[in-house]
Amino acid sequence: MEKAAGFTLGELAVALGATLEGDPGRRVSGVAALDAAGPEQISFLIDNRYRPAAEASRAGALLVAESMSGLSGPLLRTSTPQKALIALLTLFHPASAPPAGVDPSAIVARDARLDPSASVGALAMIGAGAVIGPRARIHPMVYVGAGVEVGEDSVLHPRVVLCEGVRLGCRVNVQAGAVVGGDGFGYVFDGAGHRKIPQVGIVVIEDDVDIGANTTIDRAMLGRTIIGRGTKIDNLVQVGHNVEIGEHSIIVAQVGISGSCRLGRGVVAAGQVGFADHLTIGDGAVLGAQAGVHEDVPAGDRRLGTPAVPMLQAKRLFATQKHLPDMSRRLRAAERRLEELETRLGIARPKTGTSGTADDRA
Amino acid sequence: MEKAAGFTLGELAVALGATLEGDPGRRVSGVAALDAAGPEQISFLIDNRYRPAAEASRAGALLVAESMSGLSGPLLRTSTPQKALIALLTLFHPASAPPAGVDPSAIVARDARLDPSASVGALAMIGAGAVIGPRARIHPMVYVGAGVEVGEDSVLHPRVVLCEGVRLGCRVNVQAGAVVGGDGFGYVFDGAGHRKIPQVGIVVIEDDVDIGANTTIDRAMLGRTIIGRGTKIDNLVQVGHNVEIGEHSIIVAQVGISGSCRLGRGVVAAGQVGFADHLTIGDGAVLGAQAGVHEDVPAGDRRLGTPAVPMLQAKRLFATQKHLPDMSRRLRAAERRLEELETRLGIARPKTGTSGTADDRA
Amino acid sequence: MEKAAGFTLGELAVALGATLEGDPGRRVSGVAALDAAGPEQISFLIDNRYRPAAEASRAGALLVAESMSGLSGPLLRTSTPQKALIALLTLFHPASAPPAGVDPSAIVARDARLDPSASVGALAMIGAGAVIGPRARIHPMVYVGAGVEVGEDSVLHPRVVLCEGVRLGCRVNVQAGAVVGGDGFGYVFDGAGHRKIPQVGIVVIEDDVDIGANTTIDRAMLGRTIIGRGTKIDNLVQVGHNVEIGEHSIIVAQVGISGSCRLGRGVVAAGQVGFADHLTIGDGAVLGAQAGVHEDVPAGDRRLGTPAVPMLQAKRLFATQKHLPDMSRRLRAAERRLEELETRLGIARPKTGTSGTADDRA
Repeated sequence: MEKAAGFTLGELAVALGATLEGDPGRRVSGVAALDAAGPEQISFLIDNRYRPAAEASRAGALLVAESMSGLSGPLLRTSTPQKALIALLTLFHPASAPPAGVDPSAIVARDARLDPSASVGALAMIGAGAVIGPRARIHPMVYVGAGVEVGEDSVLHPRVVLCEGVRLGCRVNVQAGAVVGGDGFGYVFDGAGHRKIPQVGIVVIEDDVDIGANTTIDRAMLGRTIIGRGTKIDNLVQVGHNVEIGEHSIIVAQVGISGSCRLGRGVVAAGQVGFADHLTIGDGAVLGAQAGVHEDVPAGDRRLGTPAVPMLQAKRLFATQKHLPDMSRRLRAAERRLEELETRLGIARPKTGTSGTADDRA
Repeated sequence: MEKAAGFTLGELAVALGATLEGDPGRRVSGVAALDAAGPEQISFLIDNRYRPAAEASRAGALLVAESMSGLSGPLLRTSTPQKALIALLTLFHPASAPPAGVDPSAIVARDARLDPSASVGALAMIGAGAVIGPRARIHPMVYVGAGVEVGEDSVLHPRVVLCEGVRLGCRVNVQAGAVVGGDGFGYVFDGAGHRKIPQVGIVVIEDDVDIGANTTIDRAMLGRTIIGRGTKIDNLVQVGHNVEIGEHSIIVAQVGISGSCRLGRGVVAAGQVGFADHLTIGDGAVLGAQAGVHEDVPAGDRRLGTPAVPMLQAKRLFATQKHLPDMSRRLRAAERRLEELETRLGIARPKTGTSGTADDRA
Repeated sequence: MEKAAGFTLGELAVALGATLEGDPGRRVSGVAALDAAGPEQISFLIDNRYRPAAEASRAGALLVAESMSGLSGPLLRTSTPQKALIALLTLFHPASAPPAGVDPSAIVARDARLDPSASVGALAMIGAGAVIGPRARIHPMVYVGAGVEVGEDSVLHPRVVLCEGVRLGCRVNVQAGAVVGGDGFGYVFDGAGHRKIPQVGIVVIEDDVDIGANTTIDRAMLGRTIIGRGTKIDNLVQVGHNVEIGEHSIIVAQVGISGSCRLGRGVVAAGQVGFADHLTIGDGAVLGAQAGVHEDVPAGDRRLGTPAVPMLQAKRLFATQKHLPDMSRRLRAAERRLEELETRLGIARPKTGTSGTADDRA
C-alpha cells in the first residue's frame, strides 16, 4: 500500500472534522492498532470493549468517539468515529492510481472502446467490443471478454475473469481471481447422459458492488444474473445462474446461492450459508453462519441452522440438544417408573421398547 | 454470446422436429423466459408449474410438450421438450468457434503437438510435450503444463490451469479459473514438522466431463485421480487426491471430496456436501445439500444431514428437532407428575435432576 | 512429474537406510500402489489394514516397517517407513528445477531484486520493489505485486497472485490459483450504503508453509495476517483479515476462518469447518469436519458439530439424535399413560398438548 509521509494532529483534526485535545503541532506518521501503535502513530478506540487496550496503548494519539471520557493523551474526538477512521486510513494510504493508458504487453481488441483515463495493466486482455469507462483500472493479467462493459472508476484486480457480455456498473471492485460470467450448471438427463442446457444469458453487476477473491458468479441461462447496487460479496462465494441479489446485501465468504434464488435488499448471509434453488429471501433477512436454507424467508426474518429455522428457535434448539443423551436416559427411566406404577395399580400394557424402531435404523 | 438473426416458426418446427400450431411465416428473433419474452421472441413451457406465467406471457410463440392443452397462440409441440429447448437455444446462440491456430502472443513449447484445427488464445501457454487434439479450444491465458493431453473438441476457458501430466478426454469443458492437477494434501508429522509426501500421480478426466469455475482437482499421490465419463462438476468444488468418480455423476457447487473416496456411477452430491476420506459411495447414491458423509453409502441410498443418515430419517429428525425444547419441558413435567404419583403411592425414589449431567457440560 | 530411470534394490537400501531381504541386483523402475504395482515396481505397506493387498500384490519389492512379519518376496525394512516412503518417492520423482533466470516473456519491474539463482516463468510479472530470494521458482503466469518478498526455495505455481506487500518466508509452496493479500471484508454501514474500511495491512507467510490451490488469504485491515511456520493449508480455504495461525497447524480444504481469529500451534481444522470472527483456538485443538465454531476453544480440546461441542459429546449427540422421532413418540405415550394413572388416582391436571408451542412454529 502506498503511504503518505505524515500529518500533524492539527491537520488531521481539520481533515476529519474532529475536535483535537492536545498539541496541534504533534506529528504522526501512520495508523496502527492499539497494541501495535508507538508514539509516532495514531490509533483509534471505537468499540468500548477495547478500552483496556486503549489505556495501555503507546499510541501518540487516539481517534475516539465524542462520548468517550477519562482517556488521557492527545485525542481526536468525532461524532462519527467509523467514518473518521475510514478517512484517516485513506489519508495515510491513498489508493494508488496507475497511470492512464494501456501497458504495451496488454492485448486490446481493435474495436474495444477504452476511455483515455482508464488504465490497462501488463498482460491483460480486452476482448472485442468491450467498453471500459473513465478511470477504470484493469490490473495486470485480467481477462475482459468480448462485449463486456466496465463502468467508471471500477477496479479489476489481477487475474479477474469477466466472461463475454458481462456488465459492470461504476465503482465496482473485483478482487483477484474472481470469475464473473462462467456458465451456469444446468443439464438435462436424456437417458444416455447429462446434456448441457446452453447458458446464454449475462451477468449484471450494479454500481458500488464489491466481489471477493476467487468468487464465482454464473451467467444466466436466459436473461440476467443480477447483483444489486451496493452489495458486498466476500471471497469464494458461489452465485448460481439467474440469481438476483438486491441492493446493499452482505454475502460472507463461502456462501453458496443456488440457481434462480432472489435475495432482497439488505440481506445478510453469514459465512458458509447454503441456499437451495428458486428461493425468495425477503429484504433485511439475516442468515446465520452455515445455515442451510431450504424454504423462502420472509422480510426481516433471522434464520439459523440446517434446515434453517428462526434464530431464537435455533438457539433454543442448540441449547437443548446438548442434553439429548441425558433426555434419552431420563425418558427410559420415566418409562420404567410408569411400568412400576402401572403394575402396582394392576394396569396391563404392551411393553414399550426403549431402542429405536426398525425404521430408525433403516 | 453470439446470436443468430432469427428464424420463422416454420424453420424452427423443421429444425426441432416439432409440430407447429400457427403461422409458419411468423418470425422470431430470440429466446426469452416467459415473463421477459415479447412478441418478437419465442419462449417455452416445460414445467407445468409455470403455466400461469405462460398464460400471461407476451411471447410470440411457445415451445411446449405435446400434452399441454388449452394454450392459445403459436405453439411448437414436441414429445421431447427439454431436448428441443437445448436445440432451440443452440440455434439462436451457436457456440462461437475461434479461428484455428495459435495466437502470436501465446507461448507454445517446441515439442508440443497441436492439431492444426485446434485454437490457442492470447497469452496462453502450452508446455513441453503437451498434445492438443482436433478442434480443441484453448482460451486466452490458459496454462497447459508439460505432458498434458487435451482431447478433441475440449474447451478450456480463460485462466484454466492444467498441471503437468494431466489427461483430458474429448469434449471436456473446463470453466475459467479451475485448477486440475495441483498437489494433493498429504503430510507425515515427523516430530519436528509436517513433511510433505510427494504427489507424483496424475489426473485423468474422461470424455464429456464438465468442470466448474475455480474448482480444484488434485493429482493422485500415486496413480490417478479419475473423473468418469459424462460427470458434471460445478464451481468451487474440491476433489482430493486419488478420488475416483464414476460416470454421469453430478457434483454441485462447493462440495468437498476427501482423498481416496470412490464415488460410483450416477451419484448426485448436492451443494456443500462433504465426504470424509476413503469412503465408497455406491452407484446412484444421492447426498442432500450440506450433508456430512462419514461412512460408506450403498448404491441407490439417499442421505442427508450431518452426520448423513437415510434421507427419510433425516427429514423426520428435522421435523422433530424443532420440538426438542418443548420435549425437554414436557419431559421435566412428566418427571414431576411421576414423583407426585409415586409419593401418593408411597414409592420412594432418588430424585432425578433435570439438568444435564456433568458429562454433558464437559 | 519427472522420473528417474530406475534403481536396484541394493541402491535403494543404501539410499533409504533400509535393510534388504532379497536380491540387491534386482532393478525396479518406479513406485506404485499395492494393487497397481507390477514386478518392475516397488510398493509399500505402512498401514497394516492394507496387508491383504500387500499379500496379493504383484510388486517386485515392498518397503515395509521393521516389525512386519510373514511377508514373502524382496523386502526393504525400515524403522521409519513413512520417512522412507517420502525418500523413495523423491528418488523416483525428483523435483524438477527450471533453469535459473527470467523468461523473456515475463515482465519484471526495473527495481525488483531477483537472486540470480531464482527462476521466473513465462508471462509472469514481478512488481516494483519486489525481492525474490535464492532458488525461488516463480512459475508461469504468476503475479507478484509491488513490494512483495519471496524467500529462498519458495515455489509459486502457475497463476498464483501475491498482492502488494505480501511477505513469504523460505520454502513456502503456493499451489496454482491461490490469492494472498486480497482485501479483507470490512464495511461500515452509514445509513446510505456499506462504506469500505481501507485494508492497508499485509500478509506474512512464514517458512515452510504450504498453501492450496485457489485458497484465499486476506491482508490485514491494519497490521498483519500471519500464517505460522510449517502450517499447511489445503485448497479453497478462506483466511480472513488479521487472522493469525500458529506453527505446524493443518487447515483442510474449504475451511473458512473469519477475521481476527487466532489459531494456536498444531491446530487441526478438518474440511469445511467454519470459525466465527475474533475467536481464540488453543494449541493442539482439533475441529472435526464441518464443525461450526462459535466460541473460544481451549488448548488440546476436540470439537465437532454445529455449534461445535466437545467431540465425545457431539458423538453421543449424533448417536442419540437418530432416535429423536422415536423419543417424541414415546414421550407422547408416557404422557398418555400418566394421564390414565392420574385419572385412576383422581388427580386433576390441565391437559398438556403434545405439539410444539406457538413459539416453536414462529
